[in-house]
Amino acid sequence: MTITITTRAATTVMDTSANAAKFYAVGVGPGDPELMTRKAARVLAEVDRIYSASSRAGEPGIARRIVDGLGLSSEKFRTVPVPMSRNRGGARSAYRLAAAEIVQDLELGRSAAWIVEGDPLLYGTSIYVLEEVARLRPGSRTEVVPGVTSVQAAAARAGIELARLGEGVAICPAAYGLDHLPETLKRFATVCLLKVNTTFDRLLDRLEALPGPLSAVYLERVGMPGERVVTDLASLRGQDLPYFSMVLIRAGRSGDADE
Amino acid sequence: MTITITTRAATTVMDTSANAAKFYAVGVGPGDPELMTRKAARVLAEVDRIYSASSRAGEPGIARRIVDGLGLSSEKFRTVPVPMSRNRGGARSAYRLAAAEIVQDLELGRSAAWIVEGDPLLYGTSIYVLEEVARLRPGSRTEVVPGVTSVQAAAARAGIELARLGEGVAICPAAYGLDHLPETLKRFATVCLLKVNTTFDRLLDRLEALPGPLSAVYLERVGMPGERVVTDLASLRGQDLPYFSMVLIRAGRSGDADE
Repeated sequence: MTITITTRAATTVMDTSANAAKFYAVGVGPGDPELMTRKAARVLAEVDRIYSASSRAGEPGIARRIVDGLGLSSEKFRTVPVPMSRNRGGARSAYRLAAAEIVQDLELGRSAAWIVEGDPLLYGTSIYVLEEVARLRPGSRTEVVPGVTSVQAAAARAGIELARLGEGVAICPAAYGLDHLPETLKRFATVCLLKVNTTFDRLLDRLEALPGPLSAVYLERVGMPGERVVTDLASLRGQDLPYFSMVLIRAGRSGDADE
Repeated sequence: MTITITTRAATTVMDTSANAAKFYAVGVGPGDPELMTRKAARVLAEVDRIYSASSRAGEPGIARRIVDGLGLSSEKFRTVPVPMSRNRGGARSAYRLAAAEIVQDLELGRSAAWIVEGDPLLYGTSIYVLEEVARLRPGSRTEVVPGVTSVQAAAARAGIELARLGEGVAICPAAYGLDHLPETLKRFATVCLLKVNTTFDRLLDRLEALPGPLSAVYLERVGMPGERVVTDLASLRGQDLPYFSMVLIRAGRSGDADE
């Protein structure tokens, strides 16, 4: 017991010089804790406070579960309930309150991290928290630690390449990208449609109407418990799909042609 | 000395069950060795052979330099000279020869990894090696270990978000994406143009002709020695820029509007 306390004090002294009063937005990768970067693991071990969003009261969020295996003291963690609804006012208030708490940490010389699944700057809640921290305390020391995204994990899992030399990739939410899909596929060799759950049947109609060979793979909860990969997309028509669902579409072409 | 040998033998026995005759395409991240995933580090410690491309004879390639700090035995490494030129025939031959060697490893029950900077499926040389291994030895056990890309490292470094809720991101080589840039910027909140070195002045002309507010940041050698970030793009006109150069463009909009 005494040893633990001594060790923690020693660690805290080391942290003070390196991370004091610094705010980190840390991407912890797509789900598999091993796909966290070594830097994310180090920063989370060093900071004084770790904040994460949770959409269900009393339950840890996804990012929090990903870092569970790091064996960090539970006293470090702060769970921020963020209501998920079309009206984003509730979420905005939650980020503001969290940012105010983080700013207080910084004022007291404490380091803090906001963790997100995937990458902090690709659909990460961290974007809003970074913005609020900068607004409340301009000039705060901040650092973004990038992470592997679910798009890359999905490509690895599905065996679909994102881009070869000379090719482009487009990433967008399905609801937003559906109308322009045929045109987008002309310009980008691979298109990643995210959150396909709300528009899946319409997406199927679109895909079936497209000319030419095409590879399309559906993935849900990539790298998380309950992961599923489906290549026969038509079999999913009419089904209830989860929020963490995506379709990777690659314009058909002979693999050898480009290289 | 004896202890070391014993330890290595014990490790090898463990490897045999887990990784024997398996081929890994491993992304080692954008440059900073700490941005490697924990899985990449583990797999590279466990495999029997590590292959990497080098564009200059006798010099280690970028991926090889990124993993230098892992302290792996140099006997594991195989450097594959890959000629970089517009005529891709030489590169194709190099990948074929490397794949043949990897297939021989697999036949002998050895595990092998092909390492690339960034992610294996986003402009990675691994795409061609994976294809060749599958062609030479169909059904080979392969796994792609995703990595943080230079695009994410650049966004983190430049402080430019890639996408908020409802937004899209486009990634493409500058030479390929320049003509459609105005239209792409209408559909995608952030556009990442890679390898801007060959078309930089034309890109400047395009950007200057675009209406509306726009953030654009130039980055070269992100996360590598000699990293440079330039926000005054016009100051780079006429300069010689390196291959690892990129411009992140974000359509100007008030940060609060989307959330």
